[in-house]
Amino acid sequence: MKLFPGVEETIEGVSHALRTGQRTCVEVTEACLAAIDAREDELHAWTVVDRDGARAQAEELDLDLGQRHWHGFLHGVPIGVKDIIDVAGLPTTAGCPQLHSEPARSDATIVARLRAAGAVIVGKTVTTQFASFDPAETRNPWALDRTPGGSSSGSAVAVASGMCLGALGTQTGGSITRPATYCGVAGCKPTYRLVSLHGVVPLAPSLDHPGPIARTVTDLAILLDAIAGYDRRDPESAREPTPAVLAALEESSLRPPKLGRLRGPFEDLAEAAALEALEAALEKFKAAGAKVLDVQLPGEFNSLFRCHRMLMAAEAASWHEEQFRQHGEVYAPSIRQLIEEGFGVAATEYVRCRRHQSRLRRTLQGVFDSVHALVCPATTGPAPDRSTTGDPAFNSPWSYSGLPTVSFPIALSPEGLPLGLQIVGRDFAEADLFRVAAWCERTLHRELAQT
Amino acid sequence: MKLFPGVEETIEGVSHALRTGQRTCVEVTEACLAAIDAREDELHAWTVVDRDGARAQAEELDLDLGQRHWHGFLHGVPIGVKDIIDVAGLPTTAGCPQLHSEPARSDATIVARLRAAGAVIVGKTVTTQFASFDPAETRNPWALDRTPGGSSSGSAVAVASGMCLGALGTQTGGSITRPATYCGVAGCKPTYRLVSLHGVVPLAPSLDHPGPIARTVTDLAILLDAIAGYDRRDPESAREPTPAVLAALEESSLRPPKLGRLRGPFEDLAEAAALEALEAALEKFKAAGAKVLDVQLPGEFNSLFRCHRMLMAAEAASWHEEQFRQHGEVYAPSIRQLIEEGFGVAATEYVRCRRHQSRLRRTLQGVFDSVHALVCPATTGPAPDRSTTGDPAFNSPWSYSGLPTVSFPIALSPEGLPLGLQIVGRDFAEADLFRVAAWCERTLHRELAQT
Repeated sequence: MKLFPGVEETIEGVSHALRTGQRTCVEVTEACLAAIDAREDELHAWTVVDRDGARAQAEELDLDLGQRHWHGFLHGVPIGVKDIIDVAGLPTTAGCPQLHSEPARSDATIVARLRAAGAVIVGKTVTTQFASFDPAETRNPWALDRTPGGSSSGSAVAVASGMCLGALGTQTGGSITRPATYCGVAGCKPTYRLVSLHGVVPLAPSLDHPGPIARTVTDLAILLDAIAGYDRRDPESAREPTPAVLAALEESSLRPPKLGRLRGPFEDLAEAAALEALEAALEKFKAAGAKVLDVQLPGEFNSLFRCHRMLMAAEAASWHEEQFRQHGEVYAPSIRQLIEEGFGVAATEYVRCRRHQSRLRRTLQGVFDSVHALVCPATTGPAPDRSTTGDPAFNSPWSYSGLPTVSFPIALSPEGLPLGLQIVGRDFAEADLFRVAAWCERTLHRELAQT
Repeated sequence: MKLFPGVEETIEGVSHALRTGQRTCVEVTEACLAAIDAREDELHAWTVVDRDGARAQAEELDLDLGQRHWHGFLHGVPIGVKDIIDVAGLPTTAGCPQLHSEPARSDATIVARLRAAGAVIVGKTVTTQFASFDPAETRNPWALDRTPGGSSSGSAVAVASGMCLGALGTQTGGSITRPATYCGVAGCKPTYRLVSLHGVVPLAPSLDHPGPIARTVTDLAILLDAIAGYDRRDPESAREPTPAVLAALEESSLRPPKLGRLRGPFEDLAEAAALEALEAALEKFKAAGAKVLDVQLPGEFNSLFRCHRMLMAAEAASWHEEQFRQHGEVYAPSIRQLIEEGFGVAATEYVRCRRHQSRLRRTLQGVFDSVHALVCPATTGPAPDRSTTGDPAFNSPWSYSGLPTVSFPIALSPEGLPLGLQIVGRDFAEADLFRVAAWCERTLHRELAQT
């Protein structure tokens, strides 16, 4: 599928051009700043654009390149950061500037890692208030009357509209995959705790996942490689060996996968357009040698949505309690309702849901004995209107169970809005997951190139 | 310090004798069964002794030895298993045979690992009801009118009185360190989630730790090496590289450590006898070259005991809810009160305590920048009378924060009861912790040998 009209550059391509001296970091950054100048007034993707800072970073990175000191694939690549993630010197408003306007004193670990990998931090992208469900001012570049999705609204829009080449988002329900899909770009929600949460405002820590948004699976891999891995400042981050995802994507290592299709009541949550796009993609995969098996979800799936909501409510309520009691009036309706719900949850119910969560996570590992990955629509349909941030039903199961996902655009709906495919992998097996996703994406691209 | 009169054998020593053909597995097992015959009637350490099974295992292990197939340091070593841990074919009563009398269908992972390492599983050792605080019938071999401590009461007594050479226990508050100390043996509470909980009846999963009880630090190391490490059947077990603890204990690698002494209100929880024993031990360590620094505990320590209790109550209540509502009458007073407390906890309070727990865990890591390990008394004093299982105040901070501990006997109180030293290490740094503990233990033993 073509990316958003006029926006075709990838991190991979730009990185090559920078490394081989065809472009400079300053040029690449200026192109993004120009895109921001051109469209920010109508899209509202940013809370702050650090023009001077971005230019200064780019200049310094050009000097490094001149001295043949290449920091890696992100060297000179402009990146946006969701505004619940700390960037030193810029405020972290978490979508609530009334209460939070102090500049962050230091970078979140994942921002520091991006910088160390050579990224240019362009600024902070709009989040819904406290990363919950209340629509922000941000518009979908494909249709200004549609939601860009949430809560990583600005990150998805900025990537889709050429304002940066990649962005950081976070997902507690469907906050990476959904906006990425609605905006026609790719998203990755990594395995729970593969990526440090240090310096990230929590919504519900047992469900919170930072992850990248970019234009292709390869670009997601480059970003994930930079941010993943144990962080001493977040002792609950996983001590797994960090996957080398990009290295796993060499053409020669990609094989037609065995895909598990989640039939039944779960898949039926999708609208017709999303199901048709899925069917069409699966047919192309099969034609290229993939196997597609029907997979039954475990019984635990039934109470998943109720438990997911209960964990999110209780944890959000606990986190916000003091501030909510003092400044309840500034809370938007959806987050307010969530917090009030959370005050009514008993610890025994909460603990029961945590147990359900960990049982489901365990049960789901068994699915991967027979398939390489699961596939389902990335969202229930194309972006709805701006009264909502859309339905996270295809995303929250993975936020809840912690399994890693990759999504990317596969088709346009009849009204010309992007639809995506979501691929779900085994815990901490990001290298395998990305191999499957890259094979699927390249198969569709080859198909398109031939037609 | 001398072990319990007449019981001097160690796993290390017996293992050497078995491997070099000086003894047979059957002889070693028969000696333990004889000790059980001699004292079980007064000590009540076991819920079931699998005499036939133990003999059959020992015979088979002798055959293996005859064919030079040595399974490792536990080959032929008789081990007891706390009766909240599944052993295939034996009931897991969890101290409540009225409700639980079915034989377990398979081994808990840690039992399977002990078997794979050549251990002879002798039977199940008495636990307090549901591993909580209600004293069981078990007696302290040092003084029958004293508590053996709990909840791993039978495991500590069985090891102390020669009925087995090592045992598995579990700790949620002080349930390994306290009974081990009261009974004059050594105990290890490993880092949270280093050891699989698959097949172990939970009390409070965010605090539950299985771990070994044995007679020396080296014996603990042998047992820990066998049971530690990621378990696919407990996906929340840590994926850390498994520490090779025994290998870390070579004499040449032991150095006088820098020890952090936990002064202040915390240490003041100890009785005079426990403090004097600690002082005396520290003097000997200093004379042998160790440094002892005073360490201030972080402010978070203040709310630790309240939060620990709240987590334990809420999780126990959630786990037991259905059974408690149906069969409340069989619950003993302390566990009943704990569960009823748990029903009253709000999810927001519970989540706040979990956050406190993880903040404390993080803060405590910093302590180890200036010392190799922390030291404090293993219990507040010697074993009290049988109306209680004793005070876990020196143990629950480590169950709560997840830091690994090793304890071993260091002195006898004026009334002739054992007192112990507890050493606390950094998360997942069991090799370092055991090196410190082994140095301390050997220093005291050398000192004793010279006087």
